[in-house]
Parts: sequence; structure tokens; C-alpha cells
Amino acid sequence: MTESKHSPGRHFLQIPGPSNVPDRILRAMAAPVVDHRGPEFPKLTHRVQEKLAAVFKTSQPVIIYPASGTGGWESALLNTLSPGDKVLAFETGHFATLWKNVAEKLGLEVDFVPGDWRHGIDSKTVRKELDADPNGEIKAVLAVHTETSTGINSGISAIREAIDSVLHPALFMVDAVSSLACSDYRHDEWKVDVTVSASQKGLMLPPGLAFNAVSDKAIETSKKSTAKHSYWRWDEMLTNNARGYFPYTPGTNLLYGLDEALNMLNEEGLDNVIARHARHAQATRIAVDAWGLENLCLNENEYSNSTTAVMMPDGFDADELRLKIFERFNMSLGMGLGKVKGSVFRIGHIGDFNDLMLAGTLSGVEMGLSIAGVPHNKGGVQAALEYLAK
Amino acid sequence: MTESKHSPGRHFLQIPGPSNVPDRILRAMAAPVVDHRGPEFPKLTHRVQEKLAAVFKTSQPVIIYPASGTGGWESALLNTLSPGDKVLAFETGHFATLWKNVAEKLGLEVDFVPGDWRHGIDSKTVRKELDADPNGEIKAVLAVHTETSTGINSGISAIREAIDSVLHPALFMVDAVSSLACSDYRHDEWKVDVTVSASQKGLMLPPGLAFNAVSDKAIETSKKSTAKHSYWRWDEMLTNNARGYFPYTPGTNLLYGLDEALNMLNEEGLDNVIARHARHAQATRIAVDAWGLENLCLNENEYSNSTTAVMMPDGFDADELRLKIFERFNMSLGMGLGKVKGSVFRIGHIGDFNDLMLAGTLSGVEMGLSIAGVPHNKGGVQAALEYLAK
Amino acid sequence: MTESKHSPGRHFLQIPGPSNVPDRILRAMAAPVVDHRGPEFPKLTHRVQEKLAAVFKTSQPVIIYPASGTGGWESALLNTLSPGDKVLAFETGHFATLWKNVAEKLGLEVDFVPGDWRHGIDSKTVRKELDADPNGEIKAVLAVHTETSTGINSGISAIREAIDSVLHPALFMVDAVSSLACSDYRHDEWKVDVTVSASQKGLMLPPGLAFNAVSDKAIETSKKSTAKHSYWRWDEMLTNNARGYFPYTPGTNLLYGLDEALNMLNEEGLDNVIARHARHAQATRIAVDAWGLENLCLNENEYSNSTTAVMMPDGFDADELRLKIFERFNMSLGMGLGKVKGSVFRIGHIGDFNDLMLAGTLSGVEMGLSIAGVPHNKGGVQAALEYLAK
Amino acid sequence: MTESKHSPGRHFLQIPGPSNVPDRILRAMAAPVVDHRGPEFPKLTHRVQEKLAAVFKTSQPVIIYPASGTGGWESALLNTLSPGDKVLAFETGHFATLWKNVAEKLGLEVDFVPGDWRHGIDSKTVRKELDADPNGEIKAVLAVHTETSTGINSGISAIREAIDSVLHPALFMVDAVSSLACSDYRHDEWKVDVTVSASQKGLMLPPGLAFNAVSDKAIETSKKSTAKHSYWRWDEMLTNNARGYFPYTPGTNLLYGLDEALNMLNEEGLDNVIARHARHAQATRIAVDAWGLENLCLNENEYSNSTTAVMMPDGFDADELRLKIFERFNMSLGMGLGKVKGSVFRIGHIGDFNDLMLAGTLSGVEMGLSIAGVPHNKGGVQAALEYLAK
Repeated sequence: MTESKHSPGRHFLQIPGPSNVPDRILRAMAAPVVDHRGPEFPKLTHRVQEKLAAVFKTSQPVIIYPASGTGGWESALLNTLSPGDKVLAFETGHFATLWKNVAEKLGLEVDFVPGDWRHGIDSKTVRKELDADPNGEIKAVLAVHTETSTGINSGISAIREAIDSVLHPALFMVDAVSSLACSDYRHDEWKVDVTVSASQKGLMLPPGLAFNAVSDKAIETSKKSTAKHSYWRWDEMLTNNARGYFPYTPGTNLLYGLDEALNMLNEEGLDNVIARHARHAQATRIAVDAWGLENLCLNENEYSNSTTAVMMPDGFDADELRLKIFERFNMSLGMGLGKVKGSVFRIGHIGDFNDLMLAGTLSGVEMGLSIAGVPHNKGGVQAALEYLAK
Repeated sequence: MTESKHSPGRHFLQIPGPSNVPDRILRAMAAPVVDHRGPEFPKLTHRVQEKLAAVFKTSQPVIIYPASGTGGWESALLNTLSPGDKVLAFETGHFATLWKNVAEKLGLEVDFVPGDWRHGIDSKTVRKELDADPNGEIKAVLAVHTETSTGINSGISAIREAIDSVLHPALFMVDAVSSLACSDYRHDEWKVDVTVSASQKGLMLPPGLAFNAVSDKAIETSKKSTAKHSYWRWDEMLTNNARGYFPYTPGTNLLYGLDEALNMLNEEGLDNVIARHARHAQATRIAVDAWGLENLCLNENEYSNSTTAVMMPDGFDADELRLKIFERFNMSLGMGLGKVKGSVFRIGHIGDFNDLMLAGTLSGVEMGLSIAGVPHNKGGVQAALEYLAK
Repeated sequence: MTESKHSPGRHFLQIPGPSNVPDRILRAMAAPVVDHRGPEFPKLTHRVQEKLAAVFKTSQPVIIYPASGTGGWESALLNTLSPGDKVLAFETGHFATLWKNVAEKLGLEVDFVPGDWRHGIDSKTVRKELDADPNGEIKAVLAVHTETSTGINSGISAIREAIDSVLHPALFMVDAVSSLACSDYRHDEWKVDVTVSASQKGLMLPPGLAFNAVSDKAIETSKKSTAKHSYWRWDEMLTNNARGYFPYTPGTNLLYGLDEALNMLNEEGLDNVIARHARHAQATRIAVDAWGLENLCLNENEYSNSTTAVMMPDGFDADELRLKIFERFNMSLGMGLGKVKGSVFRIGHIGDFNDLMLAGTLSGVEMGLSIAGVPHNKGGVQAALEYLAK
Repeated sequence: MTESKHSPGRHFLQIPGPSNVPDRILRAMAAPVVDHRGPEFPKLTHRVQEKLAAVFKTSQPVIIYPASGTGGWESALLNTLSPGDKVLAFETGHFATLWKNVAEKLGLEVDFVPGDWRHGIDSKTVRKELDADPNGEIKAVLAVHTETSTGINSGISAIREAIDSVLHPALFMVDAVSSLACSDYRHDEWKVDVTVSASQKGLMLPPGLAFNAVSDKAIETSKKSTAKHSYWRWDEMLTNNARGYFPYTPGTNLLYGLDEALNMLNEEGLDNVIARHARHAQATRIAVDAWGLENLCLNENEYSNSTTAVMMPDGFDADELRLKIFERFNMSLGMGLGKVKGSVFRIGHIGDFNDLMLAGTLSGVEMGLSIAGVPHNKGGVQAALEYLAK
């Protein structure tokens, strides 16, 4: 955004995505556009696809759309299902609800298991629901790995086991938008049929790319879909990608950025990246505990590595706090979405991040609580630092 | 693309889009990502939308998708039509054919008037077709303003008159992807219901944004569509845009670039921009004539301002010429697409361009013809320079 | 530096200069080089000079050299003095000593008043020294405003008064390298004859520009200098600058950056910029006190706004601490220079900086002290946050 | 420069330096500043120095100053000579005259052999002058390799032979500012004692770095110099550089750019780079001949690879032509300097350049001649293209 007035220092973009884009990626994206039908382009396509697949832990194709992540939900459903098909989904939060809404708009029938927004998906429920579907009317199980609105992870591996335990043939589709390159994720090992993700979170890019990692089973199933669509078609993508091209103009400069982002992940090491996210999430929770505030997530096995949703004490508005912090400390925190609007704020600790940026972030929250008069104990930052310095 | 080897000097990206992105825009796009739900974002949204509408010459909304231009075709059709609806379209070239294909994939019935790829749409044919549809079964007329694959314009104003002359109620949808900010275009005056465009042509941006300028009639019609879709929904876009936001994460950094591109168009003046394109197109045709080569466009009233498609002499392959020019002169020319693959090459003179860049471009073509042994007369560049120096 | 391995997150460059360069300035510097003898160049020169003079609070010329700040010392001396001339200088720290060394290399005789590196210049000493020079053999008084190596300011206004009190004719030369745009500085009001400064501190630029703000008296004096030099000549600079040009190729892209930096200072307001620096310096000292560590500066009226030099407890090496912090927390702190090497580390809080960056910086120091086993009390960050949140 | 109004397309910066800086270098320069005293910095210093020495074809040190190229002249003289020393120099053009002026300002006695600005240095004259100095009073021979103001090269190898033929002990200093990485240059083989160069020509960088490649003999001699100076001291540079550091803050971001520029030269291959310059110079001369204009250079063995100085027909002003071309075609040509002001314009074909950029450049000149009414034959561009297409 053309700056109309200088706010000193760097903005702290601590929403749970888009994450802070490293300058190195912004510089890579500033390279000149080239001919996407030219003889050099396939090198870029193939290089990016190979490195990207490694992040999904898959040997199967990853389709790259010039689109926001939301498009990845739609493409997963349109390619594999047909209007009237039934899918099983779980109300883990705002984004699970939005994906459900997309499914309904596409003419699918959604069995939407209600949730309290404070837990991930219970794999026993998955098993029970599928067990009650002996004829296989449920064509797909939809799960959000990291629910960005709540900072809660669902156990993808356990859901896979639940599906397998009843030998149910449904496709398994996972939203890994906020977990990819933040939490452990294994497309192939967990036999996920479609993994949906996007550029602006753990991949450290600006928004504008959506991904579908697809399984052979998903591809096979896609051949029978009767849904009417064009932009999202896997078949044309797969055919063109095999030669290093795209069926329509790709997001060239975001691909440059993706190429560089994947280099950076490889330099740090994917395991190190994930361990770093886990450590920062833990430090954040330590601060939240020290402040005497409540984490929206009730199950300690389901903490997200990417974001922590903090509940406001009764009578205090999260958005007022966020605005004060924005104006006074040049930091953006995530708003409460949907059912938790105003009662929750979210701290993003995702993407290109380090200990001192986290310390600055938590300092901004602690000072903000103080300035906004939100009841809390001091010492959250201090407690986090003690953890980080170990 | 991470450069693996330096080719000296700037690449000449003389395909008919993506066009050469000015450094000033690339720098604007390198600004840090901000919170698209934050308090400052609406200023950017509103500023961009206001300036963008002026380029479409409309006072109606222009919807901005994080998508390739192809998505703009799909959104135009999905929002306004329902599966089984009939549309009238014209085979003016490769992109008209692709748009027809999209329509068919979406379940529409397309009355596709055949063409020879050397003429624009004949408005008399439009009139005749609509006259033969007294019950208004044709729900939409689809026209490509500048057919990028042939360098041929269709007369949008004349088509509008043809529609009106028979009082036909069909929606009028125009692909202005390669004409916006290159040729005279008037969304409101010509009563276009949906204008489809994209970022990577006259708007001088990298690919990644698709546009739909929409009329009240189109919006009204959209309320009755039964097509199943979500990403492309105008209703949610319009509601959110009114407040300066988007229903899902927008392409933040491309919006920065768009903001700057629109400033640049305004600094030069839209009329001057279009006159510049017309002048460069004319100079290019003068060179082509001097070379003794044939323009694919047969009707001099239908020359495009953006691109010139040049026919190869019999027995010579356009792609061999293009590859030689790419390797020897670091210039990308447009390939012949579809029916004209190999028999045509295209010179893009579109976007951020000036006389000396055009002189370099035409020089590369003339030298390439010589190196590739393509029969031609020398002096094309010379003739163009004489025109440009007038 | 081409990154060979990605360290996650942003580097904290908390040395007392070069300071963290805002991306906005780096982008401005990436604009194409233009002809420095072309018709547009004078606009840039004049715009920059006018805004730059306002930062020095002068209506007299400010000369801009393509050089490191060190060159500004040399140019001040060479232009105004002649070999064998006597100057009065004060050992306030490492940079005062270096400037003295430069003077000696240039053939000047330096009366260098010893100091303990823990105090600024005592104006009473200035008076005494000048009073003992009734024949005006001292041709110039040299003072460093902010001694970067110690974080200690000298009272420039008081020194001016001391000079005036004895009616001594010596030129008054001030090094404001680390104070300009950080501390209150008034070239005209304090009747400074030459103010030396540089780009990479409060002006937020990369290194590469040196400045001499000059008085009429200095210019007059320069006409009589017999020193042999060429690059640094004011006369050719002043003549060329008046027309918007330079006697040799200027540092074009750093001038672009300077133009933008000055815009940013104006947007924030110079007084606000200085108040911000003062506030961050105070917060830093509060943290240092809370840690139980000693500030090198003994006089609370002489604290620098730009940097705080912290003394290590006996038996602990500052450079070991700095290296641990660099490796573990991706932060660079300033080393102890000269006499205080190893016994002092310096925290830079200078340039484009904000509360959360400072909180991150202090957090890195506090964690580093802990990791390095340096005896200290916890709670420095906490104390600083309480101050900042007031 | 902040653009106040958009001129479409890229500016053609066809002065003989600064040359067009490739975007890749501008992006490299936009990396964050790092601590020049930090543990990582020596890697950058050593990497750059090693690659830079290869361009000078030397195994001896190359000193890098944060300064304009002019500073490199001064440093060469100050380090090796003492006031009153005699040097031999040759009036080959404006820059040779400026270097002579610098020498005089530094207190040297210059034996300045007059010239007509249309020839390089005659090695027979060198021999004669030195032969007439049996006592070795001449301490240094100064030669400009490519005289930027005239586009004329002097034969450095022949001058070396002339010096050797009379066994004269003078140091040999060469200005290779406009020849380095453009023409064949061999610091070691030609036993040059100091080669002066700068960043903004064949090295494709913005201005701001000056170089001195030095011989052992020059270093030895420098120990006896009595000149008074500090900034330019080789001794401190050499001592610090050996450890990867600099005696004062270096031009960090220009060093990033230099690192990248040297990578680019290596990717293309230095011999290829020089051959490319030779070819473009030849094509330019072919165009000038075809126009019927006269090259300032009278000796065909002395044509510069970097720039061509074109004489105006009597009664026509070069600066009027240049201004017309600037305003109409967005191209900067070099002005006539000193004695040839107004009667000569210069075409720079230097740095990051390719055939189509040259074609655009020559087209701009040819059209400009036509618009300005300068008598000439058409067909210069055409003739150049025929040569380039061979």
C-alpha cells in the first residue's frame, strides 16, 4: 500500500496469515515476468513442483492455482464430487464452517457434525458416522487440520485410521492451509486424497496461490464427476503441468516467490521449521497462562503451531484491544471470527518468524492488555523469555 | 525466475501479454503484506476500485478476483446464467474458442458462429442471429473485443447496436482482456453487461488478477442463476467490497501494483495511452508491409492496438523463427495458437512501451527473418522509424 | 549479502549504525539510475538539499559526498585548515580519537584533551583551553555530539557558549553522525561552522553518503586553506550544487533513498522522531538498571538517544556475549571499540525503530545474558515494557 | 527519483556511464544492511575481492572505496607520490584533463603532453618524454585507457613497452574506469602499478564505488609518500581487508550489488562480455558511417568498445539534438564535455546491453537526427542490423 504516513519501524503482522513475507521473497517476486509459454518456463514449473511436493510429503502431483486459498476448497470438491453427493464435515470453527458453506453452494449435501469451537475433530465421531453409512453414501470426509479461527488442530492421522477401521471408501480431504510447513503433515502416509493449502501462511508468500495435492484415487474419482466447472479442472492442469506448462496464464511472479520460499524452507530444514513453530506456540501459551487468560483450545493435544486464540475476560471486547494495539504498537492481531467475534483475539506465530519477533509480539500484547485495562497478570513476556532462553 | 545464467541486457517480452511490467510496479508490489481485515485496508480497496472503474469507463462496480483472466470468463457466465441456458458466441480466434469451451464445460448451450480467424465479429450476423430468436432463448451474447490470437478487434459498439436494433434482451458480455487500456473501450456507453479483463496486459501488471465490470442488469440477472459455484460469487464480493473488504483473502500485493499502475495510466492520461498503442500498432504494420509479409487481419478497420499477427510464407515455420529470435536476441514473440500454430507469429506492442522499445522489437524480427532465411524485403524497421519520426 | 542459509525471521541490526533500513527506502533506491547531467536531475538535487537542510536546522548549504562518514571528517578539516594548524579536540571515546587521528594524518597539530570515555566534553575545559590561547592559534574546536562508542552526548550548545564567552575566533566543528535526526541538533542556532554527518544512522539509509553542513564563516575560511586535496573541495561542490549538479558522479541511488528518508522523517515529524529516540533510550536504560548492569555513561544529562553502552561485570567478555546472541537470536549488537573492547557492548536504538522492535531487542539481550551466564537480575524487559506502556 | 509523471516504457540510459543497471543487481542491492563488523561480513569481502581481481586480471589487491570514481584518481596519486613530485600525463580528452587537474590540486607537477582529443596516447611520445628524463624525475606516467569523453582508447600495452624500453622507473597508473569489463584489460601482464576504476560502467552498478588495483611496487612506493591524507590510505585498507573488514564503514549495499554483478560477468564469461562490447561498438560505427557523420576518433585502432563520440555537422548543436531525443524518445545520450561541448554527442554502448537495446538506441539517434533537421543519410540502423544479423 502506498504509504501515506510513515509509522516508524516494521509493522508486526501477527495475524495467522498472511504471514510476514521475508524481503528475500519479495525481491525474488520482483524479477521480470517471462513468457509462460516459452522454452525456459518448464524448468521453473518442474523445480517448484518437485520442491513443493516434498513439503506436502507426497510423491503425487500438487496442483497450483492462481487463486486465493478458498479456491482450493472449491477445486477439491468440484473435481471429485457431483451435485447431490453427500460429504461428512465437522464444525471445528469458522473456516470449517466456510468450507461447509462452499460445499453447499456447490450443491453437495453436507452432514455437518456440530462442535463447540474448542476442540478438534473427534476421530471416534468420524468412525461412528462412517459406520452408520454402510452403503457408502458419504463420498468424502472433510477435515480442517489447523482451524485458523481457533488455533486448534485435528488429528489427521487418527481420522485416517477411523476411516480405515470401518473400511469406508470415502475420499479424505484435508485443509492444511494453516498447517503446511508449520505442523507435521504427511499427505501420502496419511492417505489424504486431496490436501488443500495456500501460499500466504507457512509458505511465507503473499496471498494468490492455492494448492491441491491429489492422490491417484482422487484423480480416478475425478473422471466421474458431473460437476460443471472449468477453471479448477485437474485434468487440464495435470496434462499441461507434465510438460511444465499451465492451461492458462499462471501467477508467474508468485511462482518466483514460491521457488525462493521453498529454497528457504530447505535451507532451514522442514523439520527445523516445524520445531520452530512448535516452540514459538509453546512460548506463546506460556505467556497466555502467565497473563491468566484462557486459551480457546481446551485439549492440550490439539494446540496449533500456527496461532493461539486467546479468550477475553467477560465484559472486554477483543476488537477494541486489537485496535488499541494496532494504533499504539503498529501490530495487527487476528480478530475473532464468526461465533467468537469480539470474545477472542488471535496471535499468529507463523511463517518467517524468530524468537525476538515473538518477544516483540508478546510484548505488544502485554502492553496492549495494560493500556486497554484488560485484567491480567503481568509477566507473560518474562515467562516466555525464560522458556525461549532454555 | 532465479537466473541460472545471465543473458545480457533486458529481455524483450513482446508476447501479447503478459506485457513488460515496469520496475515501478514491481517495486510497489514489493511492499509488505498488510492485514486485509485491518482498519487501513478499505482505503486501498476503494482507491483502486475508483481508479479502475475509470479505465473501464463505468460508474458501476468492477469486481477483482485473485485469479487468472480465464477465471473472469467463468465468473461472468456462472453468475448470470444457469446450466442449459443458450448463449451466442463467435469464432474469431483461439480465445473466443476457449471461452466457448468454458461455457460448454459449465453446461451452457453455445450457438458458436464459425469464423475464419481473419475477421472480427460481423454485426450483421449478430443481428440476424438474434432476429431469429424471437422468444429470447439466447440469454447472452459473448464477444471478444481484441482477439489476442489474431490481433483482430471486433466492433463492440456495432454489436451493441445490432442487439438493440432487434430489441433483444440478451446480456452482452465482452472480453476486453487485451483491449483494456490499449483500445478505446466504454463499458457504460456501450451498455456492456459484463466486461471481463485481467491484470497482465494493458494494466502492466504480472498475471494474477481477473476483473468483471458488471451492469445493474447483470447483477439483477445474477439473482436468478441456478449455477452451483462459490469462489466467483458476485453477491458476496459486492457486499464486502462496499465496505472495502473481500469475502476471502485478496491478492494484496497485486492490488498494490494495480494501485500504482492506475496512477501511471492517469499520469500519462488514458487517451494518450490508447493513442500511443494505436501509433505503435500502425508502425508495426508498416514494418510488416515493408517486409512483404501478410497481416492475419484482413479488414483494416479491425486492426488491434495490442498485437499484430504475422503470417509466415508457405513452407516456413513460425515457431522455428521464434525460437531463433529467442535464443539469438533475447526476445519472446507470441506463438500461433490453435488453428494458426506454426503459421503465424505475433508481435505484442502492449502495455508499458515506447518508440525505442518498439524499434528494438521490430529490429529483432527483421534480423530474425534474415537469420532464419525467411523470404522478406529488408527495410521494415526503416519504414517504421520514418513513421515514428513524423 | 547473498544468503547462503536462511535464518528465520528478520535480523535485528541493533548496532548503533548502520541502522535497520526501512524497506520503503530500499525500494526507493532500486529505481533506475538516471543521467546525473540530464535536465531532470537538478529537481532531485534541490529537493533533497532543501529537506536535508531542515534536518540540520540550517539555512546554509549541506554538501553531500559519495563517501563513508569518515570522509566527512576529512573534508571538514581539509577545506578549512592548513597543514600545521592547531585544533582543539577531546577524547570522549573511540570516534573522537579517530577524528583526532585523521587530523594528525592531515598534518594538523591536535591539542587532544584526555578523557575517561564516561563523560562528554566539559564546557569549562573548553573555555579554559581557549582562554589560554589569546593569540588564536587554535583554528578549530572539534566536538563529537553523540560519541557512538560510548553512548554519551556532549553539550554542543554549552561548548558554543564557552567559545563565545572568551570571544575565541576558532571554527566550531561538530560530528553529528550519530545524533542527526536522533537528538536535538541545531546547526545555525548553535553557530556550528561545519557539521559532519552520514547516511546510515538516523537518516535510515545504507552507508555511502557523508555530509558537511557549512557556515558562511567556514566557507570564507576555506578560501585561505593551503591543504592539497581535490575530491573534498567545497568550492566545486557549491558551484555545481547551485545549478543542481555535482562536480563528479554522485551516488544517484543513495540520493533516491535520501529523498525518501527525508519524506519519512517529515511524515513523522522531526520532533516526534527525536522524542521517539529519547523514549526508546530511556526504556533501554530502565532495562539495563533492572538487570543490575552499569551504563558506561556516568552523567545522566549526557545520555545518548541513539545508543546505550553497557558495561560487562568483571570477568565476562562482551564479545562472547555478542556472539552468542548473534548465533542464537539473529541479532547484532555493537562491540566495544578501542579502550572498551570486550568490556562493553552497545545497544543501538536508532533510526527506523518502534516499541516492539525495542522489546524484541531487549528480550534478546536479557535472554543472551542468561544463556551466557552473565550475572544479572531478570526483569529488565518487564521494566521497560511498563515504561513503554505508560 | 520519485517519478512525478510516467514516461511510458523504459528509459534508454545511453550515456557512457552510469550504464543501465540490471534489475537483478538492483534487487541484490535491496538486501538488508548487515553489521560490517560482524562475523559473516568477511565472507562477502573476500568473495567480492577474489572475483573483482579476476576482472582486473590481477593477483594483487584491489582496494574498494565508498566513493565516486574520481576518488580513485586521488587515492592513486596521494598514496604513491609526494607534493612536488613530477608526473607525465597526456591530454587525450576531458577526463585526462580532469585527472591532471586533480594531480595539480594535490601539489604535483604535471608534464601534460597536449593532444587534439582525436587520438589516443602515442607510445613514441611516451618513450621520448621518458628518454628525456635520465634522472628519473618523472615519478609516474598517467594514462587513460578509454577516454570517456572521446570514445578513444590508448594502447596501454604499448605504453608499458615504451616505459620499459628506456628502463624508466616511473610508476604506471591507468584509468580503466570506462574500459574495465568492456575492453581487454590486463593489470598484471601490462605491469600497471595502479589501475583506477569505478562501479557504474562495465560493472553495471550504480555509482558509489571506486577501485585501485595496486602492484607490489606501488605498495612499496606508498610507504615513502609524504602526502597528507587519511580516507584514501592503502595501508589501513590492506590491513583490514586481509581480515575481511574495512577501516571505516563500507558501502554495504553496493558491495551486495558488486557481488551479483561479478556473478553475472562470470556467467556470461569475461571474454564474451568484451566481445559483445566490441561488436556493439562496431555496429554503432557502421550506423554513424551510414548516416554520413564523423567519428571523433581518427585512428581505427583506437576505437573504444564503450562509447562512440559523434561529431555534429557544422552549425548544428549537439545539446539541442540530445534534448530533443530526451524529450521525444526517453533516451539520454552523453553530452560533449569540455572542448567538444556542443559539437559532439556520445552514444554509450556499455554495461548490460544487447542487440535489441542497441537497435533501439540507434533508432532513437536516427529519428532524432531527422526530427532535429540534422543533415544525414538514412539507413544507419538498417546497416547496423545487417552487421548484427551476420
